[in-house]
Amino acid sequence: MRFIDINLRGAGQVMFMNNPLTGLLILIAIFVGAIDASMTQVAIGAVVGLVIGTATAIVLGVDDASLKQGLFGFSPLLTGAAIPTFVANKPMTWVYLDIGAAVTTVVTLAIGNIFKTWGVPALTFPFVLTTWFLLLGAYQLYRIHNRSLGPAGLPAFATAATAHVDMSASYVVTSMLRGVSQVFLIGNWVSGIIILIALAVNSRWASALAAAGTIVATLLALAFGANGSSINAGLYGFSAVLTAVALGCVFYQPSAGVLLYALIGTVFTLFVQAALNTALAPVGIPTLTAPFVLVTWLFLLPKRDFTPTPHHERTSGGVMSHSPDASA
Amino acid sequence: MRFIDINLRGAGQVMFMNNPLTGLLILIAIFVGAIDASMTQVAIGAVVGLVIGTATAIVLGVDDASLKQGLFGFSPLLTGAAIPTFVANKPMTWVYLDIGAAVTTVVTLAIGNIFKTWGVPALTFPFVLTTWFLLLGAYQLYRIHNRSLGPAGLPAFATAATAHVDMSASYVVTSMLRGVSQVFLIGNWVSGIIILIALAVNSRWASALAAAGTIVATLLALAFGANGSSINAGLYGFSAVLTAVALGCVFYQPSAGVLLYALIGTVFTLFVQAALNTALAPVGIPTLTAPFVLVTWLFLLPKRDFTPTPHHERTSGGVMSHSPDASA
Amino acid sequence: MRFIDINLRGAGQVMFMNNPLTGLLILIAIFVGAIDASMTQVAIGAVVGLVIGTATAIVLGVDDASLKQGLFGFSPLLTGAAIPTFVANKPMTWVYLDIGAAVTTVVTLAIGNIFKTWGVPALTFPFVLTTWFLLLGAYQLYRIHNRSLGPAGLPAFATAATAHVDMSASYVVTSMLRGVSQVFLIGNWVSGIIILIALAVNSRWASALAAAGTIVATLLALAFGANGSSINAGLYGFSAVLTAVALGCVFYQPSAGVLLYALIGTVFTLFVQAALNTALAPVGIPTLTAPFVLVTWLFLLPKRDFTPTPHHERTSGGVMSHSPDASA
Repeated sequence: MRFIDINLRGAGQVMFMNNPLTGLLILIAIFVGAIDASMTQVAIGAVVGLVIGTATAIVLGVDDASLKQGLFGFSPLLTGAAIPTFVANKPMTWVYLDIGAAVTTVVTLAIGNIFKTWGVPALTFPFVLTTWFLLLGAYQLYRIHNRSLGPAGLPAFATAATAHVDMSASYVVTSMLRGVSQVFLIGNWVSGIIILIALAVNSRWASALAAAGTIVATLLALAFGANGSSINAGLYGFSAVLTAVALGCVFYQPSAGVLLYALIGTVFTLFVQAALNTALAPVGIPTLTAPFVLVTWLFLLPKRDFTPTPHHERTSGGVMSHSPDASA
Repeated sequence: MRFIDINLRGAGQVMFMNNPLTGLLILIAIFVGAIDASMTQVAIGAVVGLVIGTATAIVLGVDDASLKQGLFGFSPLLTGAAIPTFVANKPMTWVYLDIGAAVTTVVTLAIGNIFKTWGVPALTFPFVLTTWFLLLGAYQLYRIHNRSLGPAGLPAFATAATAHVDMSASYVVTSMLRGVSQVFLIGNWVSGIIILIALAVNSRWASALAAAGTIVATLLALAFGANGSSINAGLYGFSAVLTAVALGCVFYQPSAGVLLYALIGTVFTLFVQAALNTALAPVGIPTLTAPFVLVTWLFLLPKRDFTPTPHHERTSGGVMSHSPDASA
Repeated sequence: MRFIDINLRGAGQVMFMNNPLTGLLILIAIFVGAIDASMTQVAIGAVVGLVIGTATAIVLGVDDASLKQGLFGFSPLLTGAAIPTFVANKPMTWVYLDIGAAVTTVVTLAIGNIFKTWGVPALTFPFVLTTWFLLLGAYQLYRIHNRSLGPAGLPAFATAATAHVDMSASYVVTSMLRGVSQVFLIGNWVSGIIILIALAVNSRWASALAAAGTIVATLLALAFGANGSSINAGLYGFSAVLTAVALGCVFYQPSAGVLLYALIGTVFTLFVQAALNTALAPVGIPTLTAPFVLVTWLFLLPKRDFTPTPHHERTSGGVMSHSPDASA
């Protein structure tokens, strides 16, 4: 039972929620979206990654307080969801995924120790780094078959054709909801609604900020003329959702100033999303949540400069410590 | 008046000069070069970036000593000059530039906090990082139009044709002077002379080392057969100029040993300039001042190893603290 | 004599062995392989790099204890071997190599100071970083001629043809031995045997783990269908060899748990080797030992989490401190 509780909290911690019910609803959202897309292996991969990652943390004897909060589950969950999303569902894929999920826990400890130096958490970077290695490696390994990676290509400037979108209201709203679900590599607007509910169970601020993040990012992506089919798939929303929640109510306390700061961070996340789409084109891999990680790090690192007294120091002593500061 | 003083010092700090007159002369040099090239928007962008970056620092309530020295102005100034250099002069460009300049100040705090761990300043890396994001992002955003980026391409080995140069004395001298002005993304030898004068106003060492840096880099680029038109445009000079000044008289005290060390750093900056030209070719963005930043970091980080007692610890407590140690 | 002793230890330290006889045998292995391939300049480059790097460290007045252990020799040795491996043997190449070897020592101090923050050594990253700069730079410099770099290209997925291998026993065994020798950029199975003997002179654990590392990596590369000619050249083995030795007996004490941990690290090194092959394809440079460095860092950084009391703190105070903890 304790192991299940830790794993459910691990699912919730992808969105910074230390709450097993939130985690359960998130897992349901993942299954709904994966089954609907006939990609059940993505949901199974997520659960396998979550369990292997958490078990690896237990075997390695990590800090118990962090473990109990699910801080060793969320990155391996994402590694486990990402591999079957981009790589074909074959036996060797699951060997690859299992090793990858275990290594994600080692990387969680490693990156956590580096960023502890500046009082900043590793966020989902252990997932991003490990999965980038696995996806780049897939190109060279004949027994790992491609599903939706690449083709690698040189970046070219956007055109009226790439920026074309259908501007109906239903298009825009479902794109925004898919932006929420894409945090978990799921492009399904029903899943997006379930995730917003899952957040509200634990923190109404988090739910509201997630919604605000995808609204701002989607509207801005339309205004700047980003790729229409990417917007529709929710691919311009998910990193912005995470940045909005992280900066707006998790690592800072919500206030007028903080919300403005989080808004600027959310807008910049959109630009970094576009930037990494360009930067990774020649190597044929997706950005994953790197835009969120990079912008949130850049906006958290100045914390000590504008908060003269550390108003809410983490006490868990864990490597990640990203439990929410605020719940409504 | 105080705000203007801070901004002028900010312009001077691109070259490590905490001096408003140096900053004023530098702004004049930027306007001279930009107007001569019918690119007045570059000079306007520089001023807009400088003012927005400094104002953002004030709003965020940064360390006052660093603010007064102009340490929050120089990176946004460069962001503001770079955007209209590479991106077409349209309304959305200015929205992009304004957000970018404000974010450059956040990034200045972030990078400053990281590198403070090792007693090393952020240099112009906040400009480089923020502007790389904005230029990479421009490829994906239809409302941001290209001016002089790319095309992205796979690197190929230099040939006799690419290395061809006109070896007249006037060619070589004006190339060297453009190397100085390219610190500010200006390719104009008159601007180069004004900038050398601007430096001499505050530090004859800095002015002499800037001249030496561009002379060494240009001659070496010719000797190794670097791209002839890049040499002519000053693009092999500007990072070397900054390295020579930084290592030769700002972060170390000038001496025979330090000048030799700075010379090796300047030579290696040329190689890193060539390296980053290759590395960034497939993503179609310029190196900006990254060669200077990387080499100067690598040559400053060993400081504690060969200076047994820290001979001149910064006392400002600021994030950047790169006021010159030496002025003649 | 003391200078020669330091240099021989420097050669041994590529494999973490603080032993002049090990270093001498390694140099013999390098000469055997280089002469056999009619590439004597690679062995000469290795010696020149070793001597220049060590001499630069003496001139800079580095920490004496680290110097005596050869910790400033091994990265420049590799820089010196790599340049003539990838760049044609012309006069300017040796200017390039000499400056590169000296700078490698500066970079050794710089990277050492950064990673000291987390109690982790710089490993061969100073070699990797400096040599990457020099090889990328070679593309732009007409007087530095290509030998075996590139061509740069976009990554494509492996096929049955690329994965094809001749599965004879002699093929597999010689591939494994070339995996050992490729640590020094030498593809020669006799050199591989000499290096295993050189390790055994100082530490039977190190020799056994090096052999285990190349066996695991080669078999796994075959199982996953990596490029057949790369496997045959030993290019999937060398980083795994270094990871196995580093994690298995140098930075952790050998035990059942540590050997399992080192095994996972070695397996992941294979995936990272494949990943960096993909990532560096568009810029046309080799991975060098980066897969070993990245994985070993990631697997050493959690050390403090699972070793409650630091069981063997380095006392040398040096920047690298990677003398072996265990010798049989």
